[in-house]
Amino acid sequence: MFLLGTDIGGSSVKLALVNADDGYEIVSRSSFPFEGQPAEEMCLQIRGAADIMLAETGLSDSDIAGVGICVPGNIDKERSTVVNAYNLGFHNVPLKDLVSGRFPGREVSLMNDADAAALAEYKAGALEGCRSAMLLTLGTGLGAGLILDGKIFLGGCGRGFELGHMPFKNGGDPCTCGLEGCMERYVSASRLARDGARVLGETFSTARAVTDAAISGNKKAKKLLNDYIDVLSDAIAGICNIFDPERIAIGGGLSAAGDILFAPLSDLVEKKNFYRARYDIVPARFLNDAGVLGAAFSVGLTKD
Amino acid sequence: MFLLGTDIGGSSVKLALVNADDGYEIVSRSSFPFEGQPAEEMCLQIRGAADIMLAETGLSDSDIAGVGICVPGNIDKERSTVVNAYNLGFHNVPLKDLVSGRFPGREVSLMNDADAAALAEYKAGALEGCRSAMLLTLGTGLGAGLILDGKIFLGGCGRGFELGHMPFKNGGDPCTCGLEGCMERYVSASRLARDGARVLGETFSTARAVTDAAISGNKKAKKLLNDYIDVLSDAIAGICNIFDPERIAIGGGLSAAGDILFAPLSDLVEKKNFYRARYDIVPARFLNDAGVLGAAFSVGLTKD
Repeated sequence: MFLLGTDIGGSSVKLALVNADDGYEIVSRSSFPFEGQPAEEMCLQIRGAADIMLAETGLSDSDIAGVGICVPGNIDKERSTVVNAYNLGFHNVPLKDLVSGRFPGREVSLMNDADAAALAEYKAGALEGCRSAMLLTLGTGLGAGLILDGKIFLGGCGRGFELGHMPFKNGGDPCTCGLEGCMERYVSASRLARDGARVLGETFSTARAVTDAAISGNKKAKKLLNDYIDVLSDAIAGICNIFDPERIAIGGGLSAAGDILFAPLSDLVEKKNFYRARYDIVPARFLNDAGVLGAAFSVGLTKD
Repeated sequence: MFLLGTDIGGSSVKLALVNADDGYEIVSRSSFPFEGQPAEEMCLQIRGAADIMLAETGLSDSDIAGVGICVPGNIDKERSTVVNAYNLGFHNVPLKDLVSGRFPGREVSLMNDADAAALAEYKAGALEGCRSAMLLTLGTGLGAGLILDGKIFLGGCGRGFELGHMPFKNGGDPCTCGLEGCMERYVSASRLARDGARVLGETFSTARAVTDAAISGNKKAKKLLNDYIDVLSDAIAGICNIFDPERIAIGGGLSAAGDILFAPLSDLVEKKNFYRARYDIVPARFLNDAGVLGAAFSVGLTKD
């Protein structure tokens, strides 16, 4: 049984054909640009890319048992409509039905991309075997997916899990969500990139550049990184105070930073959390594949 | 079958004898001062108070099937030891065993008081019938108990649910927990009381006094109350962003404030939450009885 995992992002649509009978191995990949095309057109392109992947792998259309899709936005309770995906310009788009139209008779699943990434890490990655765990993806924003009691948590009423929009610096910078001082503004990788550009110059305008400079011994970069880790540890300590998870995986480009990030982060979280517990904070396993894999895993996911 | 619910607070120990066969009706109450006496002595006093309640109600010792106890502090994973209850001066106190020594052969249950209060509201109060709900008790601090998937959430690893210690104003006032700017500092009833004393004078040093003055038309009091509701709505909107609960009950003295609190609070939370959803925010049912009832309900609670 094969599943088509599709990760719709602000600049590209990534696809993977996944063998669900063999550890969810990716047997083929594809992608095409997302440039604001209407959802109907995008679904046609997904169908076209799938056909090419099927041809390349010698599989036939009937080998695809289901199609999983993830988007950077929130989904309705029925997991059939994209309510708001600002980076895609999708608002109240009945994406599940549109995809079903191109893959008739197949199970189609729709999920938020941060939830999908957490599902991938839980099913086959850094969170495997945990009953209670979280994936924090540090990127342009703060993506977060939560495993509770061995299930992905999609909100008590099914509306979502928007951890990035907890107030973190009440009365701080306005956020696009309507609140002020939301957590993602202060702990996303973009924050470190902004600091890098401001203090070190435009060539340091990515989190990776700041981290690399810090590793190379640049003192200003080291200070920026440490300030960032200090604030990130505040956020994670607070998260531990309320969720008390067995493990937290860090995704996004910073997850490759190694000890310069994870060692002080783990120490600070231990000092700051209410229980003074040593929490297990690890790099995520899947980087660019988290979305397509999680989308594939979401097919057949029960809502209970 | 009768259960003894015991709520140990910073100034008094409250007890209730509860008829578990008749809707958890309280058939007798008692209390005695807590003045820092050692746990062993307090357990003797609990036994003494129970004996008097049994005599008054014509029940015998064997009618007590279990004893539930709640404390303002965090409990170990096995729910047998009080790890830290600062207001009681209890640190690593094996309270379950100490109580069992006075009630041999009975089931004894230990719980955090905020969790117990939420359990009471869930089993028989304002949260009854919800699968996903929260009780926020606005008092000296911010007590919070969470119902998830029809069960009380005691932390992914059993350490607790310390929502009051989410960073809310990062870099703000130092908190006793070691973090800075914790939520409870900004949204507890004490915050409104402090504002009242500062702006209106010492006779307005309780949240109730400020609320009553606002209802009576005192403009300065109304402004203080509205500022407080604004910040409280930030916190609750963030809580809705991550937990997306069916219902939120507000406990503590402010829960009796009525429309002057609940109407603007509900409107602001609707404007501020990520999903722009109308969340159900209601007064809690049990006020002073929440602890003793929740403690009684906690007897026989499975950990799964």
